[in-house]
Amino acid sequence: MRSHFDGSNVLITGGIGFIGSHLAERLLAEGAKVTLVDSLIPEYGGNLFNIEPFRERVRVNISDVRDPYSMRALLPGKDYLFNLAGQTSHLDSMANPIPDLEINCHAQLSILEACRATNPKIKIVFASTRQIYGRPERLPVDETHPVRPVDVNGINKTAGEQYHLLYSRIYGLRATALRLTNTIGPRMRVKDARQTFVGVWIRQLLEGKPIEVWGGKQLRDFTDVEDAVEAFLLAAMNDTTDGEAYNLGGPEVIDLAALAQLLVEVCGEGRYEVRDFPRDRQAIDIGDYYADFRKIETQLGWRPKKTLRETLESTISFYQRHLARYI
Amino acid sequence: MRSHFDGSNVLITGGIGFIGSHLAERLLAEGAKVTLVDSLIPEYGGNLFNIEPFRERVRVNISDVRDPYSMRALLPGKDYLFNLAGQTSHLDSMANPIPDLEINCHAQLSILEACRATNPKIKIVFASTRQIYGRPERLPVDETHPVRPVDVNGINKTAGEQYHLLYSRIYGLRATALRLTNTIGPRMRVKDARQTFVGVWIRQLLEGKPIEVWGGKQLRDFTDVEDAVEAFLLAAMNDTTDGEAYNLGGPEVIDLAALAQLLVEVCGEGRYEVRDFPRDRQAIDIGDYYADFRKIETQLGWRPKKTLRETLESTISFYQRHLARYI
Repeated sequence: MRSHFDGSNVLITGGIGFIGSHLAERLLAEGAKVTLVDSLIPEYGGNLFNIEPFRERVRVNISDVRDPYSMRALLPGKDYLFNLAGQTSHLDSMANPIPDLEINCHAQLSILEACRATNPKIKIVFASTRQIYGRPERLPVDETHPVRPVDVNGINKTAGEQYHLLYSRIYGLRATALRLTNTIGPRMRVKDARQTFVGVWIRQLLEGKPIEVWGGKQLRDFTDVEDAVEAFLLAAMNDTTDGEAYNLGGPEVIDLAALAQLLVEVCGEGRYEVRDFPRDRQAIDIGDYYADFRKIETQLGWRPKKTLRETLESTISFYQRHLARYI
Repeated sequence: MRSHFDGSNVLITGGIGFIGSHLAERLLAEGAKVTLVDSLIPEYGGNLFNIEPFRERVRVNISDVRDPYSMRALLPGKDYLFNLAGQTSHLDSMANPIPDLEINCHAQLSILEACRATNPKIKIVFASTRQIYGRPERLPVDETHPVRPVDVNGINKTAGEQYHLLYSRIYGLRATALRLTNTIGPRMRVKDARQTFVGVWIRQLLEGKPIEVWGGKQLRDFTDVEDAVEAFLLAAMNDTTDGEAYNLGGPEVIDLAALAQLLVEVCGEGRYEVRDFPRDRQAIDIGDYYADFRKIETQLGWRPKKTLRETLESTISFYQRHLARYI
């Protein structure tokens, strides 16, 4: 069967990053013509090694989404915009709130204005985050849960998502938001915890150090990056998603100590240590979180296909081969 | 009795505007030393005529809150920051979203960072807005109502308020947000509807034109500007307000056609015409709104003292004398 994306023109912001590069690879396999935008700022997720397997088959445009002119130049003629560029570190958003605002708010408004001006029919899928819910008042968290972010990053990502849904409602732009939970897999940032704490855990494990677990009892869910990619494609393909926000979630719910234990098992060696929560983290911690993802399951037929163990296996196997390219 | 504010040092952003100038006048009467910051951008609320009665008794600093250096220079030594500067027009926020973001988000983060750096003990009262609630899902609207803004201005004001409450929670800055409903009184902008539609109605009435009422059945509440000023002082005086948001409200609830009728009665002449809602307004209209203000009533003893008729009388009387200075 011919793919929905065969021959289509696709733009991916954050396209050299973790999720963006998997999305690019999948869309290439579906026959799409793919352009990647990425700033390659060292603190963010872009890493040219991520696209080495398909570097010659994509167009790469190194630019910052804060530069409105490059986006205006790149948008015309595109059928899909997967809008994944973002500042993701909660701690960085507190230490340096203005860059977080420039990327997660200002650039998003600029991109939407550029879409209105140059390509109002483009379909947009925006990478939002569970962080907008803040500390859950009930579990699992569905999309009607109050939005009460607990850090600057959460406040700014909330605004960024709201602009997308507003522009869909008011101007008829075709924008959908996916509220991602922890997404893991090969190519995620492991140098530090800026993208996910699991990245730094894997690095500690592979470098022969104990995994540092803070607290340990917090419940979380995890989406395999390939499952997340599937959700981006489903959202892009379906007109019924215009103006809607959907949670992604994981196949199981696990506490952090059990996750560390599972990582040690999968890796076949190593250990973990449970420590008290650092003060600067505690202030913006959200306690337990796991998503109710029945909205996307019911409307688009999405559900996680990989078990958590399979995801950890593929991830650890990748970094056993390639850790040096990520640290 | 000696006033709480006697001898205190006060900074008011948007201080030459409608509410800011009344706050300044009241604080002078309480014995405070008052510095006003205002950009005097013509589309916003600043008007030097507003401070003519007390021009020689305040320090005036013309600068834009988007300029972080002027705020850093002005904050040291101040006891109170009344943070009222904002872009208030819903339609302007849709036509020109970036300036709205720069003023209502970016500048707010800069101001809070400047407070942390130069004056972490300062007490801050931030002018938030009912607009953050969006279209009410229940009436009256209390502070637990979901925050679901329906335009760019509402999204950005939400972020601006959240930064204040976050910085209070995380860093111990002493910030309080007042969610204003329609505030009216002498010195409000009447040149156009950028601040409140009531302003342009009063101008139409005094220029002998019929008041244009769009729709007419929407319910609203109105706060007299002197009552609003009282709320700012109460919020500033009470440590229990740190990190809290409070609705203001009005003494009565009225539909827009009845408000137009009351204005005509108070003015003693004129008429109004009910028209269909313009399309660009309809898209971002919120339907009926009126506030539940029991939180501030219970905690701080605030309630509106002026009747709506008294407020309209003082306002119309002011513009009968001074309309030319406002158009």
